[in-house]
Amino acid sequence: MTVIDFRLRPPVGGFLDTLMYSAGERRDGFTRSVGFEPSAAAQGQSMALLLSEMDEAGVDQGVVVGRLAGTLGSVPNADVLALVNDHGKRFIGAASIDPTSRRQACDTIDAALAQGFKLINIEPGSYPIPLYADDRRLYPIYAHCEDRGVPIILMVGGTAGPDLSYSDPIRTDRVLADFPRLNVVVAHGGWPWVTEILHIAFRRPNLYLSPDMYFSRMPGWEEYVKAADGFLADRMLYASSFPFCPVKEYKRWFESLPIRPDNLRKIMGGNARRLLGL
Amino acid sequence: MTVIDFRLRPPVGGFLDTLMYSAGERRDGFTRSVGFEPSAAAQGQSMALLLSEMDEAGVDQGVVVGRLAGTLGSVPNADVLALVNDHGKRFIGAASIDPTSRRQACDTIDAALAQGFKLINIEPGSYPIPLYADDRRLYPIYAHCEDRGVPIILMVGGTAGPDLSYSDPIRTDRVLADFPRLNVVVAHGGWPWVTEILHIAFRRPNLYLSPDMYFSRMPGWEEYVKAADGFLADRMLYASSFPFCPVKEYKRWFESLPIRPDNLRKIMGGNARRLLGL
Amino acid sequence: MTVIDFRLRPPVGGFLDTLMYSAGERRDGFTRSVGFEPSAAAQGQSMALLLSEMDEAGVDQGVVVGRLAGTLGSVPNADVLALVNDHGKRFIGAASIDPTSRRQACDTIDAALAQGFKLINIEPGSYPIPLYADDRRLYPIYAHCEDRGVPIILMVGGTAGPDLSYSDPIRTDRVLADFPRLNVVVAHGGWPWVTEILHIAFRRPNLYLSPDMYFSRMPGWEEYVKAADGFLADRMLYASSFPFCPVKEYKRWFESLPIRPDNLRKIMGGNARRLLGL
Repeated sequence: MTVIDFRLRPPVGGFLDTLMYSAGERRDGFTRSVGFEPSAAAQGQSMALLLSEMDEAGVDQGVVVGRLAGTLGSVPNADVLALVNDHGKRFIGAASIDPTSRRQACDTIDAALAQGFKLINIEPGSYPIPLYADDRRLYPIYAHCEDRGVPIILMVGGTAGPDLSYSDPIRTDRVLADFPRLNVVVAHGGWPWVTEILHIAFRRPNLYLSPDMYFSRMPGWEEYVKAADGFLADRMLYASSFPFCPVKEYKRWFESLPIRPDNLRKIMGGNARRLLGL
Repeated sequence: MTVIDFRLRPPVGGFLDTLMYSAGERRDGFTRSVGFEPSAAAQGQSMALLLSEMDEAGVDQGVVVGRLAGTLGSVPNADVLALVNDHGKRFIGAASIDPTSRRQACDTIDAALAQGFKLINIEPGSYPIPLYADDRRLYPIYAHCEDRGVPIILMVGGTAGPDLSYSDPIRTDRVLADFPRLNVVVAHGGWPWVTEILHIAFRRPNLYLSPDMYFSRMPGWEEYVKAADGFLADRMLYASSFPFCPVKEYKRWFESLPIRPDNLRKIMGGNARRLLGL
Repeated sequence: MTVIDFRLRPPVGGFLDTLMYSAGERRDGFTRSVGFEPSAAAQGQSMALLLSEMDEAGVDQGVVVGRLAGTLGSVPNADVLALVNDHGKRFIGAASIDPTSRRQACDTIDAALAQGFKLINIEPGSYPIPLYADDRRLYPIYAHCEDRGVPIILMVGGTAGPDLSYSDPIRTDRVLADFPRLNVVVAHGGWPWVTEILHIAFRRPNLYLSPDMYFSRMPGWEEYVKAADGFLADRMLYASSFPFCPVKEYKRWFESLPIRPDNLRKIMGGNARRLLGL
């Protein structure tokens, strides 16, 4: 069984400038809120410790996302690529795009695919000028990804933008409906719209759900667990959101959830492999 | 105790052309998703088997709805009427209307009442040109039903339309508020907006709730159960959504829920009888 | 340990003209719906009995809100002030404002603070002309409260206005985001948008949550309890919503919830004292 952690932000390159590393107390506060102790790799900003944690935990691969953002801080694709290239098959890259120019965004996507990126990361509400997930300016970009057969990560949960409207499940559903052959990983699980995103997941076979850090005991999380062991077993994805949750303890905790072993294997690796064509 | 199943689509007439029969695998997939095995009556498209299932289960009557729809497939009122007339008091008819002409819709309602239909079925998001529940074009039709004293079934849950906005509970609440003497059966339980529809049910005495197929272990369903055994005992309605759920096994399962016997009797028959003036 | 009940409407002055006293059967129906028996103080409209109930329950102080409303009925600030002055430190006053004139509203706020009011009560959807919480006409008033350092009570849950849109959590979130130094007590807990308001509470440190009468076993209430004993322990507020819930039995029930004693002390008094600078 290969374990893939679908959201993992290593302490290298541009990641160190994002809030999750530059505001360590804020991050640790979150970590404790969801019931974990901060990991040494997070606090020490140590790549070596992260790799050790992954080894000890038995996490084989991690999906690492580039980001173009305002307040959250950006991570250039080049940094993600360097990480992927430096560590063999340990990391899987998701490239970010600049949505203000559709042509440039499509070129970025094509270049990223040629470089070995496996996904495109789209975080509508976090761009310097926030967009809604169903903004018309994103539609040519979604179309391009659908045509290229590359899955996207769509961040429409948690602190997805300036206010709660940026995780509005109605807007998310429209994207899923309008691009039925585009596989969409909903990062942050659409939280807090838990029953709503699960309805969408039930209805739209092109949705993959990654509740990641909100899986861990945030209001409504039990519904994620039940769906993981039920109708969504083939499209739920395991993700620690490191450094928000510690790689090792998150895994130990996740494996203790009431999810049957065969479903657990899918969620912690099989679904990701199928989605990414690995 | 008379048991009334408030949503039941027999394998006859136009029903056979709707997706629930023409796409049997899709239907069976749903059935299994919610924890049941498909019934022989559903898979065999057998009216005789359905009647046997009803007999064995002790289901005395079923509410059968006409439908004017796009992709879901339509069921003419004439087919529903024929079914009702062919089977004594075994079935209760709900007539559908065409919302594109308010005058014709009102004429249809009057004719249906004269023919013995007991309810009007309105599925705003499923019309060939989808409408929202609070679309102004539906308001004269709601007014006509309110004036005639006939309850409506309003389908504003589940796959209620092209996207999640068609089950928006805010729109549903407005209809309830604007027509306070119109009794409204919310089909599909307003799912996935579970706490929201329960708030509306708590506030609006003219709402009857039929979570039907989404009652059966879909995200948030435990709240339906608690409301059924609490403040909503007098306005919750039992419905299998056959052929999505099997008549007999759904009933057996429903009776095992933590709902007190006196409330169960109301939900499985008494509330429907009072609502329909039987 | 000082116990503060953050929502308490005594049977005096203008309160007697509001629906909660003038429509006693409606109120008692609600009380029973949430699992309590109506208190003698509520049914007898007796101030002496209320004070006895508070004494017996060990409730030291109650927050009493003025209200300018349409159908719900109004309570002039003068009535609240008289109550506060008549009973030593037993009651804490929240003043209401008229949102139709921002200048007059700001004057009212300044006068109220000079008279000893500790909070401003804003109920956007209940004004004679209902407003949304993020209505631009309220923004100068929010700004004034933020500048004066006075917390507000914002009623955006339950029957918050003519329809469910008046408790829309997206609108609530915008107010919290746009006035980050304004402490906002969300009355009625944002119910029924339970996971959504808890997300907002998680994200916005200026939100205090008072689920009050909807805390008591309404759909989704277990999430309030878990948040109270988790990430929201420092910003959850105890409130009986008397006369909807009986002061004494509500407290006994509340103390039986699975909330650790140190968190219970915060929720039942400490948080309110810190918020109000007592």
